[in-house]
Amino acid sequence: MAENPTHSLLSRLIAEVFGTLMLVIGVIGAALFISAKTGPLGVALAVGLAVLTAAYAVGHISGGHFNPAVSIGAAAAGRLPWADVLPYIAAQIVGGVLATFLLWLISALSGGKFTADFGAVSNGFDAHSPSGFGIGAAILTEIVVTALFLWIILGVTASGSPAAGFAPLAIGLALTLFHLIAIPVDNASLNPARSIATAVFGGSAALGQLWVFIVAPIVGALIAGLTWKPLFGRK
Amino acid sequence: MAENPTHSLLSRLIAEVFGTLMLVIGVIGAALFISAKTGPLGVALAVGLAVLTAAYAVGHISGGHFNPAVSIGAAAAGRLPWADVLPYIAAQIVGGVLATFLLWLISALSGGKFTADFGAVSNGFDAHSPSGFGIGAAILTEIVVTALFLWIILGVTASGSPAAGFAPLAIGLALTLFHLIAIPVDNASLNPARSIATAVFGGSAALGQLWVFIVAPIVGALIAGLTWKPLFGRK
Amino acid sequence: MAENPTHSLLSRLIAEVFGTLMLVIGVIGAALFISAKTGPLGVALAVGLAVLTAAYAVGHISGGHFNPAVSIGAAAAGRLPWADVLPYIAAQIVGGVLATFLLWLISALSGGKFTADFGAVSNGFDAHSPSGFGIGAAILTEIVVTALFLWIILGVTASGSPAAGFAPLAIGLALTLFHLIAIPVDNASLNPARSIATAVFGGSAALGQLWVFIVAPIVGALIAGLTWKPLFGRK
Amino acid sequence: MAENPTHSLLSRLIAEVFGTLMLVIGVIGAALFISAKTGPLGVALAVGLAVLTAAYAVGHISGGHFNPAVSIGAAAAGRLPWADVLPYIAAQIVGGVLATFLLWLISALSGGKFTADFGAVSNGFDAHSPSGFGIGAAILTEIVVTALFLWIILGVTASGSPAAGFAPLAIGLALTLFHLIAIPVDNASLNPARSIATAVFGGSAALGQLWVFIVAPIVGALIAGLTWKPLFGRK
Repeated sequence: MAENPTHSLLSRLIAEVFGTLMLVIGVIGAALFISAKTGPLGVALAVGLAVLTAAYAVGHISGGHFNPAVSIGAAAAGRLPWADVLPYIAAQIVGGVLATFLLWLISALSGGKFTADFGAVSNGFDAHSPSGFGIGAAILTEIVVTALFLWIILGVTASGSPAAGFAPLAIGLALTLFHLIAIPVDNASLNPARSIATAVFGGSAALGQLWVFIVAPIVGALIAGLTWKPLFGRK
Repeated sequence: MAENPTHSLLSRLIAEVFGTLMLVIGVIGAALFISAKTGPLGVALAVGLAVLTAAYAVGHISGGHFNPAVSIGAAAAGRLPWADVLPYIAAQIVGGVLATFLLWLISALSGGKFTADFGAVSNGFDAHSPSGFGIGAAILTEIVVTALFLWIILGVTASGSPAAGFAPLAIGLALTLFHLIAIPVDNASLNPARSIATAVFGGSAALGQLWVFIVAPIVGALIAGLTWKPLFGRK
Repeated sequence: MAENPTHSLLSRLIAEVFGTLMLVIGVIGAALFISAKTGPLGVALAVGLAVLTAAYAVGHISGGHFNPAVSIGAAAAGRLPWADVLPYIAAQIVGGVLATFLLWLISALSGGKFTADFGAVSNGFDAHSPSGFGIGAAILTEIVVTALFLWIILGVTASGSPAAGFAPLAIGLALTLFHLIAIPVDNASLNPARSIATAVFGGSAALGQLWVFIVAPIVGALIAGLTWKPLFGRK
Repeated sequence: MAENPTHSLLSRLIAEVFGTLMLVIGVIGAALFISAKTGPLGVALAVGLAVLTAAYAVGHISGGHFNPAVSIGAAAAGRLPWADVLPYIAAQIVGGVLATFLLWLISALSGGKFTADFGAVSNGFDAHSPSGFGIGAAILTEIVVTALFLWIILGVTASGSPAAGFAPLAIGLALTLFHLIAIPVDNASLNPARSIATAVFGGSAALGQLWVFIVAPIVGALIAGLTWKPLFGRK
């Protein structure tokens, strides 16, 4: 959704902290706690429902990005002032890290019976890819799925789009879809804030590969943001 | 949804009995009967769909709380008169216990081939946590997910929210999401009526740990209810 | 949805044949072909999506019952003329049997590599219950879940209900929910047309137990149809 | 949705390329990468969500067919000018092959650790059917499910349909449903563009059986397109 000028920047940043907290609690909470029993389907469902519900709750305040790549893509498409991009990204990183901190704390309070392996849920390639995909596959996958994700977002939130009230539903379920494709490759980023949030608890391997999951989603988002109007915005 | 002054208190209480009966039939019916074949995904889906469908059916009558923590949080946020809270909670406990009684009766009529283990589906920690989480983890988890749940509810049902008719969908699917995170920790409460409904059939361990699943969700709901307006209600 | 007097009885009966064909293709197609790989989650999802999609497509023509118990419950609640009940039921049985005939034909054309066991997907109790539930459990389960299903249907389709366009979504997903509870007990009927459709290909055991899955859902539907207005129809 | 005369043919073809790319990335990306861990449920969910989200994003531009059989069925029902059918089909084949090319490239970049077996995800019968179904079963299944799919599509997109904004949701979830039934038979086509997209990377067996998955879905779509008005379009 386009940012809403009737809300102050502070209100919008609180909404972005909340939404990114929801997104990362969803995807990483499910990945850490329940994926052993549900497989990746539970993780893909959780992240989609987190975004779907948070976007219905606060999307009208901030636009419901919850993702630096989305904010950058939205700015490239003329939907968000570039001046708002950095504050949005800061809020998203805060929300994401707050989520992984809470999950770390819950695990620490398990009394030693449960150990949260943040390295295993961090984004990664080669030895850190669930199915052994290399760096080229991770980069291409993140560019492709993030670009597709942004085209979907820009399409359903275009002014005059008949998707109207269905936009949060479509965006959340699109994220579920792209996780079903990208989890086996690199644990699915599409979102630098999600990647940072796990990497800071994930050890040196996660931190060393992090740059890929900051750069590639942003490249994908920029491609989509810059091309949306020429591709889909004409009559 | 805000309670509707055009419906009598009796009508609203009947709706709360029905909705909480649906919620507990959903989550505990699935947990008892089908989780051996679906894992926790079936349980998380069932409870979300129960609330989604019941909220579409009767949410406009009572507000569709189906949960004492939600009623308390809604009162704290100024959405429900405090005078209605105790009758709502009574109706919710009746609905929840009616659901577990029906499930107990169905199991009893299985002719001994199927034994319902209400202890195993009660909320618990330490030895009674599916993944061995301790009391601190259970308390923190319930506070966090119930607070997030209430912020979502208060956001999508705020007057003037663009979520409009999507509120029951968002609330139901949020409950699915939070079960995906909290089931492994403590079987997921977020709802004292659900915890009471299984504890009364669950034996002394469930009853002994019950207070945690009454107190912690209410604490989370109060945090969210008291902070919603300062956090999200400004322009 | 209430039957629509602007459509002829023939149009409405065609819609009921189509919708019940969809419902039974969904639940029995999934149960026969894919449940070995998805478990009951795939079956519960399939039947809900079949009703959701068929109700969006033709529900405005016939009311989207696709189920004799629903038609009887709707008549008891004053939503369908009693004179239409028998033609509706006939159309539903035709649609259901047409679905199982097509599935039988597809299996027969598998060249002997795949054998469809219609007995195993018929409704049943004792030795024919997936989890060994007896006749009492089957009867009580069918009454309870069909009554809950009808209250949901009558709630979301009440004139002036805010559920409006969401009614097919709520009804379809309610059916998914109730299958998650009732499949382990008796393979989940809630619908005599579905039970008849499999029993006619299911052998003597299925036929011998069929009466339970005709009577119990109708009893549940009548309870809900007769009580909806006093319980939920007041202000 | 009916094609929209306010958009140029080029705009509509770009939308069809995009949507078919999404559809095939969804179904084949999930089938190749994640189905080993989710079973066919993940695949059926992915293809439905791909169509749901793409139809919300660009369905109002092109009608959201993403499938030659849908375009032919829509033309037979008078919803699309026959002159647009060939350009639409060309765009759909381009989008589908672009999707499998990207997936092939991602796999090739896995560094040899992951091998994509496009033959195994191509549509097929006999030895190439997941459950050993023969050619007759594949033909009948594709005709039946594609006809049902088209009746659903034509119903929810009929002018004046109360399904209105729910059409993309119903169409996407219908595709999930039909995949739950048809995957075990022949890997589920319903869509010649999807079948072509995998066959070109799938080896001689996939290419040799491809004609079935071009002809049968089109036959089913024509049956539905020609009969929709007499069956469901009357009052």
